[in-house]
Amino acid sequence: MTDQGVDTLLLSVGHDLPYLTGYEAMPLERLTMLVVPRDGDVSLVIPQLEAPRVIEQPGVFGLVPWGETEDPTAIVAKLASGARTVAVGDQMWARFLVELLPQLPDASYRRAVDVVGPLRRVKDDAEIEALAAAGAAVDRIARELQSGAIPLVGRTEAEVSAHLSARILEEGHDVVNFAIVAAGENAASPHHHAGSRVIREGEIVLCDFGGTMAGYCSDTTRCVVTGEIPADIAEAYEVLHTAQQAAVAAAEVGTPCEEVDRTARRIITEAGYGEYFVHRTGHGIGLEAHEDPYIVEGNDLPLAHGHAFSVEPGIYVPGRFGMRLEDIVVATDDGPRPLNASDHLLATVDG
Amino acid sequence: MTDQGVDTLLLSVGHDLPYLTGYEAMPLERLTMLVVPRDGDVSLVIPQLEAPRVIEQPGVFGLVPWGETEDPTAIVAKLASGARTVAVGDQMWARFLVELLPQLPDASYRRAVDVVGPLRRVKDDAEIEALAAAGAAVDRIARELQSGAIPLVGRTEAEVSAHLSARILEEGHDVVNFAIVAAGENAASPHHHAGSRVIREGEIVLCDFGGTMAGYCSDTTRCVVTGEIPADIAEAYEVLHTAQQAAVAAAEVGTPCEEVDRTARRIITEAGYGEYFVHRTGHGIGLEAHEDPYIVEGNDLPLAHGHAFSVEPGIYVPGRFGMRLEDIVVATDDGPRPLNASDHLLATVDG
Repeated sequence: MTDQGVDTLLLSVGHDLPYLTGYEAMPLERLTMLVVPRDGDVSLVIPQLEAPRVIEQPGVFGLVPWGETEDPTAIVAKLASGARTVAVGDQMWARFLVELLPQLPDASYRRAVDVVGPLRRVKDDAEIEALAAAGAAVDRIARELQSGAIPLVGRTEAEVSAHLSARILEEGHDVVNFAIVAAGENAASPHHHAGSRVIREGEIVLCDFGGTMAGYCSDTTRCVVTGEIPADIAEAYEVLHTAQQAAVAAAEVGTPCEEVDRTARRIITEAGYGEYFVHRTGHGIGLEAHEDPYIVEGNDLPLAHGHAFSVEPGIYVPGRFGMRLEDIVVATDDGPRPLNASDHLLATVDG
Repeated sequence: MTDQGVDTLLLSVGHDLPYLTGYEAMPLERLTMLVVPRDGDVSLVIPQLEAPRVIEQPGVFGLVPWGETEDPTAIVAKLASGARTVAVGDQMWARFLVELLPQLPDASYRRAVDVVGPLRRVKDDAEIEALAAAGAAVDRIARELQSGAIPLVGRTEAEVSAHLSARILEEGHDVVNFAIVAAGENAASPHHHAGSRVIREGEIVLCDFGGTMAGYCSDTTRCVVTGEIPADIAEAYEVLHTAQQAAVAAAEVGTPCEEVDRTARRIITEAGYGEYFVHRTGHGIGLEAHEDPYIVEGNDLPLAHGHAFSVEPGIYVPGRFGMRLEDIVVATDDGPRPLNASDHLLATVDG
């Protein structure tokens, strides 16, 4: 906070609060807010009826419960009075900032990610092992997909998505975060919502799935083809595979995030598919499925030991097909460490 | 917007956006924002890779896709330029408002609930029937609980919570929103997180559960006792039951929301339990589990035909027991219509 010139840090809904205190705010209309002054005592402003949920940590923060007819924003404003620069958590509900603005008229606002991000994005050994365990769990599902053990042809995308979701839980995750299943031309929509489209013979099926296991997230993407691989898909996939492996290899400590993106993009562009790679190469991962650091043009942050992130280039040809290949990778002093190890080739499966 | 003096309405994550457009923003770091000027064309600013998810509605809104290296907040600021009063959605991520503040330095901010809330809180017949169907589904589960068909004694709260969650999905909900199970002294924590506590003979078990079915939410609370009902619990429950039924009966069109709260609170207070009723009497319900109108002291909004809300007083004696009784009720021109019909008495069940 001193480095960043932040007087008061305000954390509510989101993962910064549990990262620092072990307590996660309920995502509801009653305000929970950790108020961290640069100097002075830390307070957890909390609905009175939720105070019994908190494991108290005297010496770390004090509890400030508020009753149902009190204005919690006024309590926060009083605790933050005099602050000129206030950093607020990314996912705090905007309504609370709207209510705070007139009560702290002289403050300017910053994103709390400037303060908490540098802490959260460097994973320690226990965090890396938690990410590795979650990765190994989804790899077992990816292998079932590649071996044909998860039926595809004749089922809807939504049915396969439900199957993947059930397997994610069976493999030890507490929550399913997403299970994208996109067949044929639907795979050209990177965030396709699995629907009633029935999977047919001879088409590509993109599966991007993950969840949260013991607090840390998994996220992997593999594509398979139901039957013989069409020539245009085989050709594009070879480019994608080369680009993804090159980007993983580029993820050395000290390399700027954007350089990892450029590595994948250069190969895809030189092969003539540049216009079809419509998103960044990756995102950080940890307590959240998407967090700092982002592997995107414009992010010149050098990778450090313990940074964990996805490397997931894609090629999306509207109306025809889409494909993406995704591993989670940790930058380490010994080089990039991929946390996903299921086969990277385009598998062909029987219906 | 004219009535409220709002120049521009900004809607992102949350339910206002799907209520107005049918499209729900992904709760991720890439900004989706509906920009509604009081006069002029409506724009949906959306990540380029998510644009294929949108069902376009020309004449309602135009799509403004943004690429991965663009600044979406700058696009929103340009679309909102000149606005003096900007209303923002409650659940928009605060980071986007933080980024917008310096780009619209002359604007003041309001909650979008002032604009969209009056529309959303009046449910039409189809919405009421959707709420009724969701209510009937959770009633079937409540009856299983009351009949002893859901085993309690010897199981942990977490196991019973998982059982309720599975039943919520089997009964046709798409999502489980919560399944609070709190035994004995744990029931004194209104938002208790179901844990490893094993349920024993002769104690109260509070179950508060609901989900989302075809877009609309269910929410009901019933308590049961495993074996003979202790005298102190029986006495308190009789007060709670009387208070809850009186509050439901008070929920006539034209009655201020706070008067419904006062009705329950007066009875509980006169019986000597006032200090143990630590929360408001209820919350609105619809697309969200908690929404306008809130049944709380200080809310003088008169109930109107089509308002749907919970009536859920509770008595929480720390270290001893807790209890809550909850129905969803719709205010109608024919009087209050409860949407939950499982038995309201304190059931006793065998282990």
